[in-house]
Amino acid sequence: MDYAKRIKRLQAGLRRQQIDAILITQPENRRYLCGYTGSDHGIAETSGVLLIPAKGGVYLLTDFRYRLQAEQDVPWATVVLYPRGLPRLLLRLLPDLGVRKLAFESHYTLHSTATMLAEGLAKAGITMVPLRGLVENMRLIKDEEEIDCIRRSVRLNEQVFSEIFPAIQPGRSEIDIALAIETAMRHHGAEQPSFPSIVASADRSALPHAVPGVLPVEKNRPLTIDMGLVLNGYCSDMTRTFVPGRADDRYLELHRLVRRAQLAGMEAIRAGVRASAVDRAARAIIAGAGYGDAFGHALGHGVGLAVHEDPRLSSLNHKQLRAGMVVTVEPGIYLPGWGGIRLENMVVVRDEGCENLNADTTWLDL
Amino acid sequence: MDYAKRIKRLQAGLRRQQIDAILITQPENRRYLCGYTGSDHGIAETSGVLLIPAKGGVYLLTDFRYRLQAEQDVPWATVVLYPRGLPRLLLRLLPDLGVRKLAFESHYTLHSTATMLAEGLAKAGITMVPLRGLVENMRLIKDEEEIDCIRRSVRLNEQVFSEIFPAIQPGRSEIDIALAIETAMRHHGAEQPSFPSIVASADRSALPHAVPGVLPVEKNRPLTIDMGLVLNGYCSDMTRTFVPGRADDRYLELHRLVRRAQLAGMEAIRAGVRASAVDRAARAIIAGAGYGDAFGHALGHGVGLAVHEDPRLSSLNHKQLRAGMVVTVEPGIYLPGWGGIRLENMVVVRDEGCENLNADTTWLDL
Repeated sequence: MDYAKRIKRLQAGLRRQQIDAILITQPENRRYLCGYTGSDHGIAETSGVLLIPAKGGVYLLTDFRYRLQAEQDVPWATVVLYPRGLPRLLLRLLPDLGVRKLAFESHYTLHSTATMLAEGLAKAGITMVPLRGLVENMRLIKDEEEIDCIRRSVRLNEQVFSEIFPAIQPGRSEIDIALAIETAMRHHGAEQPSFPSIVASADRSALPHAVPGVLPVEKNRPLTIDMGLVLNGYCSDMTRTFVPGRADDRYLELHRLVRRAQLAGMEAIRAGVRASAVDRAARAIIAGAGYGDAFGHALGHGVGLAVHEDPRLSSLNHKQLRAGMVVTVEPGIYLPGWGGIRLENMVVVRDEGCENLNADTTWLDL
Repeated sequence: MDYAKRIKRLQAGLRRQQIDAILITQPENRRYLCGYTGSDHGIAETSGVLLIPAKGGVYLLTDFRYRLQAEQDVPWATVVLYPRGLPRLLLRLLPDLGVRKLAFESHYTLHSTATMLAEGLAKAGITMVPLRGLVENMRLIKDEEEIDCIRRSVRLNEQVFSEIFPAIQPGRSEIDIALAIETAMRHHGAEQPSFPSIVASADRSALPHAVPGVLPVEKNRPLTIDMGLVLNGYCSDMTRTFVPGRADDRYLELHRLVRRAQLAGMEAIRAGVRASAVDRAARAIIAGAGYGDAFGHALGHGVGLAVHEDPRLSSLNHKQLRAGMVVTVEPGIYLPGWGGIRLENMVVVRDEGCENLNADTTWLDL
């Protein structure tokens, strides 16, 4: 990845806004800008903060525990430790760098942290400036190197699904299947699952966000598997619903309806189309068959270094799609007491249409 | 758990500060107050927010995806969905409840969220009041029911370690062992690991925060395993270092030194003693043998619903320990190029000393 180019682009943006430096705290933004692989333990326990001046070299600020990893991952940055906390280190570093206006990521900085930093730095005549989405806007459009990383993540995810598939048998518990999936992911070199895998059988498949339990997969009932992994930092996300055993007519009818909605969504995607129009194209199919109320979530979301990122394919997002965006297309129908069906692929927005990143079509066309 | 009692205690605190209601966003605080098991996807994707008025019933605000789980977990609360976002829902709910001053958790609310809510609510004459640590202060002291939960979490963690132990053989990869540990945890009913398990062999054991890799466990070199799980919401955390094969004299000397430091720390713990004094008691043993620089982190941390919580057993925390606190005691020595040794137990602070929650003493006294 061309980190130098990304840093330069960000620095140009800072200079345009007359900001002297920015603190990058959002983990995927940090990785996007420098490749640092440190993983945070929630927002309250960071593995490091990037300090990027509007001009000049980059600093990676971290603590004792992450020093070696920081130095190995980002040899071109200056790694500085903060044994007495970030505010003290900033008070020492920023005046030397001539920083008077310091931007921070308002959408990934705790209110208490922002307040504490602002009070501490005010003493040194430094003003904190809240910013939102500066790096996220850069991440919206993926270059071909990133798309290739995402493609490999999608393909590995499909490979794991095929490997695990023969072991998905009625009677086996949901959690057992979920663990087998995540173990296979990591054996194949995934850093981690991109979210806790969903394995939901029968009634439980009616919960879009089901947590796999000790209950067994039921024969002749819908089974939803929603899984994704992180490979070289980039996420995949795929959902398949099928019936272990024999699918009845109602299942087949609803499955084909969801698949038609997915195809209509994919058909609507190309650069220049509003995200809400894509959502509408898929939703119209499901609503037209009388199941509009049973599809309670947005059609899709962006995927990249984060498994959920912009753009959202939702009725509320009227922004135009742009070439190089990567999104999921995942319509669903959820009927409490019966079960649910969701089908999810990932696609790249192109000028003339969309490129489907999923090669495997098993369980899509029944 | 007596959620009604906790809510009443919090409400009394709100009334003392003349606050009309509080938004609870911190996930462990939310679980502590109502038992809701929804899990968030990072701070930006919550599974729900508690709204607790200073008087009257509790509201659990969430979205479509978590509705059933919220209603099942907290049948005594009013579950309300926010299809158009939290600010809109609050603008509808708060005036009816007569709320003029709304507190929020400053240490678990994003700066951008706090700003957006404050602007939105100001139109309705409602003021946002940042608060910190109100619920965390309640969580500091565990009652016997909580201690029992933690004890069971510790014991299950030990059981998993004993089960996996025979399969820890030189040549097997670190990640393979970590996966076996986490799979066993979940098969035994743990909700999840309380943090990504650390399995670090040879040089890599010198990283206190090592990430297990595909490299094999090396014979006759130190191996550090740091593992914990979540059982009924409560965390455990345990570290063992040992040598697969034959430990040399240097290893034995350093291992015994770390163990002496751990015992000195445990010996120093009782209600009324400063946290910094406990850290000092353990650190003095290691520093006295000339390895002070090789012990670069604090002696321990609180454990409960969160795996890292207050109190910190650190040289910077001069607060007194109180009966019912639960902490880790985990001195370590890290020598780059050679390896590291860390030994970690969990104890309950009692009036007369400490109660060791770890029953297993394997690999402590060599």
